[in-house]
Amino acid sequence: MNILETINSPGDLRALSTGKLPALAEQIREFLIENICRTGGHLASSLGTVELTLALHYCYDTPNDKIVWDVGHQAYAHKILTGRREAFSTIRQHGGLSGFPRISESEYDNFSVGHASTSISAALGLALGRDILGEKHSVVAVIGDGSMSGGLAFEGLNNLGSSQTNMTVILNDNEMSISKNVGALSRYFNKMLTDKRYNKAKDYVWNLLSSHERTNIGKNLRDMIRAVDGGLKHIVIPGKLFEDMGLRYFGPIDGHNLTDMIGIFKSLKEHIRGPVLVHAITKKGKGYPHAEDNSTKFHGVGKFARETGDIIKGSAQRPTYSSVFGQTMVELGRTNKKLVAITAAMPDGTGLNEFKDTYPNRFFDVGIAEGHAVTFAAGLALKGLKPVVAMYSSFLQRAYDQLMVDVALDGLGVVFCIDRAGLVGDDGPTHHGNFDISYLNTIPGAIVMAPRDGKELRDMMYTAIEHTNGPVFIRYPRGNVPESMYAEDFEKIEIATPKLIKRGADVALISLGDMYTDAHQTRELLADQGIYAALIDARFAKPLNAGFYKKVFSKYPLIATFENNTLTGGFGTSILSLSTQSNKQTRILSFGLPDKFIPHGDVAKLKAEHGLAPEDMAKKISAEIKKMG
Amino acid sequence: MNILETINSPGDLRALSTGKLPALAEQIREFLIENICRTGGHLASSLGTVELTLALHYCYDTPNDKIVWDVGHQAYAHKILTGRREAFSTIRQHGGLSGFPRISESEYDNFSVGHASTSISAALGLALGRDILGEKHSVVAVIGDGSMSGGLAFEGLNNLGSSQTNMTVILNDNEMSISKNVGALSRYFNKMLTDKRYNKAKDYVWNLLSSHERTNIGKNLRDMIRAVDGGLKHIVIPGKLFEDMGLRYFGPIDGHNLTDMIGIFKSLKEHIRGPVLVHAITKKGKGYPHAEDNSTKFHGVGKFARETGDIIKGSAQRPTYSSVFGQTMVELGRTNKKLVAITAAMPDGTGLNEFKDTYPNRFFDVGIAEGHAVTFAAGLALKGLKPVVAMYSSFLQRAYDQLMVDVALDGLGVVFCIDRAGLVGDDGPTHHGNFDISYLNTIPGAIVMAPRDGKELRDMMYTAIEHTNGPVFIRYPRGNVPESMYAEDFEKIEIATPKLIKRGADVALISLGDMYTDAHQTRELLADQGIYAALIDARFAKPLNAGFYKKVFSKYPLIATFENNTLTGGFGTSILSLSTQSNKQTRILSFGLPDKFIPHGDVAKLKAEHGLAPEDMAKKISAEIKKMG
Repeated sequence: MNILETINSPGDLRALSTGKLPALAEQIREFLIENICRTGGHLASSLGTVELTLALHYCYDTPNDKIVWDVGHQAYAHKILTGRREAFSTIRQHGGLSGFPRISESEYDNFSVGHASTSISAALGLALGRDILGEKHSVVAVIGDGSMSGGLAFEGLNNLGSSQTNMTVILNDNEMSISKNVGALSRYFNKMLTDKRYNKAKDYVWNLLSSHERTNIGKNLRDMIRAVDGGLKHIVIPGKLFEDMGLRYFGPIDGHNLTDMIGIFKSLKEHIRGPVLVHAITKKGKGYPHAEDNSTKFHGVGKFARETGDIIKGSAQRPTYSSVFGQTMVELGRTNKKLVAITAAMPDGTGLNEFKDTYPNRFFDVGIAEGHAVTFAAGLALKGLKPVVAMYSSFLQRAYDQLMVDVALDGLGVVFCIDRAGLVGDDGPTHHGNFDISYLNTIPGAIVMAPRDGKELRDMMYTAIEHTNGPVFIRYPRGNVPESMYAEDFEKIEIATPKLIKRGADVALISLGDMYTDAHQTRELLADQGIYAALIDARFAKPLNAGFYKKVFSKYPLIATFENNTLTGGFGTSILSLSTQSNKQTRILSFGLPDKFIPHGDVAKLKAEHGLAPEDMAKKISAEIKKMG
Repeated sequence: MNILETINSPGDLRALSTGKLPALAEQIREFLIENICRTGGHLASSLGTVELTLALHYCYDTPNDKIVWDVGHQAYAHKILTGRREAFSTIRQHGGLSGFPRISESEYDNFSVGHASTSISAALGLALGRDILGEKHSVVAVIGDGSMSGGLAFEGLNNLGSSQTNMTVILNDNEMSISKNVGALSRYFNKMLTDKRYNKAKDYVWNLLSSHERTNIGKNLRDMIRAVDGGLKHIVIPGKLFEDMGLRYFGPIDGHNLTDMIGIFKSLKEHIRGPVLVHAITKKGKGYPHAEDNSTKFHGVGKFARETGDIIKGSAQRPTYSSVFGQTMVELGRTNKKLVAITAAMPDGTGLNEFKDTYPNRFFDVGIAEGHAVTFAAGLALKGLKPVVAMYSSFLQRAYDQLMVDVALDGLGVVFCIDRAGLVGDDGPTHHGNFDISYLNTIPGAIVMAPRDGKELRDMMYTAIEHTNGPVFIRYPRGNVPESMYAEDFEKIEIATPKLIKRGADVALISLGDMYTDAHQTRELLADQGIYAALIDARFAKPLNAGFYKKVFSKYPLIATFENNTLTGGFGTSILSLSTQSNKQTRILSFGLPDKFIPHGDVAKLKAEHGLAPEDMAKKISAEIKKMG
């Protein structure tokens, strides 16, 4: 019997006997694998949290009780159990379900996520808000061990510990493996800790010690305890760190054992007050051997063959920008011994794996800690090294202040290779890199480049690591480079020099980065109408070459700019501002993304929806030419 | 004898016998108090670190060994000892020494600072860079307990602990008081810990336990230790938290006891390898009773009377923007029971003290944790409360991603009252708030306002807390409001509505926020020349009222915009972009700050240096009018 098909809300789940839950867990896994192999998605994390999700919705009165998922890529089972089973096949598709929790999508989604380490802070807001309003409900944040390395999580824990409000943090730890030993010991440990009598006894001892602090008895007892602990404090005691921050610690528990989890969650909900951390051990990819063996490959995966676990590749044989970046780093590292690479938990996604293997002592993975990555790079640059920070565009946002104060203020020579710039597709608004040109523009002294293809990316990297004065940013999109081959030799690019690619007299098309392809198509469509456009690869979003553009402004009455970035404060705006310094009144059409959050979906469709289809752009340009007479 | 006058570098210091150091410490204190009472500055923190600074430069071979100061307001003694004694009277003055370490100022300043929590990350960069280059020198980060609450510090510690490189973090803890008891115990404790034989013995026990992990002996021993510790783990053991993160912990030590510190630092430098945390207890304001009694008042202080400790006030009797904000919050909180206030360790600076005292359960100080403050506010808004986050402009930069993803993406109704927007003066480039309009402009759906005076600030706050849809930002400068009184009654402002203040036919002056005063003066100077300018208070930087401005564009051939913000991506740029949608070709002059970091100094002088003196602006406008014929 298929139980899953009878579950349309957590209420249906809570009506089941506990005995039926293991079978339901299996059906959810089956459902997940069967769907994700066809749509792609965050499979490994979501397979790892099936039992945890069941236990949470079984014990807590959702949506009245609030569960906040960190990042949210582990929340597929949550989506399936909260009324989105039938829509699940549309996940991450254009117009379909989001790959992350979204408050606009369901009353069971209490916070919209996508970036790491936010759950504790957001949940604390819900918990302290509840307290002010005099309401009663539980608040639970679920956070992975990776997200725990982010400073924001620490700030949240620190504040939670001092607030002493009722809130539970579940640390979903999928790095540790559960050996029999640890499991047995910790089960015993948890039983003790959740037992009401034990907690009462512990409080009694603690209060006794506190009240006798100033007497000899209390002092001697405490000194003794300190001496024992002090002398052996290198021994790691599970949870001591969290206890020191004012949270009660329970764990580690087996995050795949439904009975244990249900027992603990019920205890917590009924008996325990104040902030609590539950340490649950789970296995990424649990139940699908291919994903268990290679959870990195199945973290965010495309379509795959269920039986073999092989990824179903598209027809493109061209390398990705990430792989061009990765290979180029290895090449450059061969001659430049001062080149070091830094990633924030993304060696795979950014393409740094080969560099990591080739030059392990010049590679640093700092964890999910973007702010630290940037300030750390500043320190390395001050020692005379040449740090290259590889990061996704939307995650670099998290280090805006560090870019400004720790790197740019002193003009330190750090290179930033920004992947996933512009629209990324399936992952949606939290992952689109459509703001970087704008926020990097505000940084004094920044050099901001964008390559039109793989070769130019290589040349820009070569140029950037030779450049000593101030930060250099190179931004490029998700996906494949447009050419099937790229040259082996490096050419240095003069800073702030655009490149005229095609001549033309009627209009100048100035494209930034990957929009070159779109601008090129637009040019061909214009030529079909007898409009001859010059095509310029801007290469630099900042600084702009005033001399070069002055000539462009005086030569062309109409200019069109192309960027895969928000128009607000972006490249087109910079060209417009520069044009006002010229005496000629040039008409400027700016093509780029609107001032709004763009949903997930197919990149080509998203571009078309926002007026960036070459046909539409060509139409707009020719209309403008006609209007200008 | 004045020893201080003989110290022109740390080398001179190291030539002294230890017996002379206490006298030198006293002379530094005398020097600091005598100078700061005349110039103003960060007195309390710097008085607290006199002995620590002496001990560090005495034991470490600076500048070969590297000391990185967090924030840097505690580094005055460091400046005095490193060749800047004679220049010290110019500190924070126009053209004088910076109030913070600056690598451009001295080879002893290893990182330029101003924002909190960066020292560990930067120092780790120096340390790992040293390792790659095969160099040998010590690296020491000095960080206050306040800065330790920032997530960036945690990210740094986390990375340091796992790197196991040689580096020392000094936690300068001035919250704990040193009772005799703790002092005596910890002195003993430290002696033990720094003793080579003890450390060897401890390592031996530890290794023994590790190697017997799988045998019964090892397991039983460990279980025993765990049971003892587990049962009593609410007892706080100093340093356990840091030990759990992979650092060796020494302390607490008395940060005013030179002998103890010198002993420990020498031991550390010679015997101890790997990451170390030294916990030093200091007293803010040490040696100046007025500052010891009120370290908040003397944190960043203006000129004061040395004998009485009274602040020497300027002639202005007008309230500050901060105090108008603070009082208005108290008023609004009276009727709106859902109004809550959040600050990141700045209840005093932002003006929230009275709100805190009046509505303690609706006030949250989250510590130096700007990212958390914003995400936490998002959680509160989701529970139906109306959070007002009060923060300095340059610190809000640290939460750019949280503003974007955690607040704006879902259009949550959080209000941000941004103090110290625009130039701040003495604190310089890390504290100027000259980027906020630009980075806030990039946020879809944001409403960004700036008041021209105290009354408008009140009305904007009133408007903002009534607004339910999306984040509202109100930015205002450091210093006094321009009017001596402000109205008691609130007026609601229609979103995106500028206000025409003065009529005029020749040119339209559009001012944003506090630049109203400068624009007004410019208008009068123009009138003297027979040029009649309309004066518009923009009130909103975003969104702009297209209908209103379209009329302005068609009526005036020349427009001048005024903003206390970088021109790149700022208000003038938004007006310019909007004007291109109009068919009329309007000439736009934008007055604002250049695309660079502005040094510290007198605000009026800084403005004048960047072309913002009303005389210069009037000249430029009249020249443009002549040119246009």
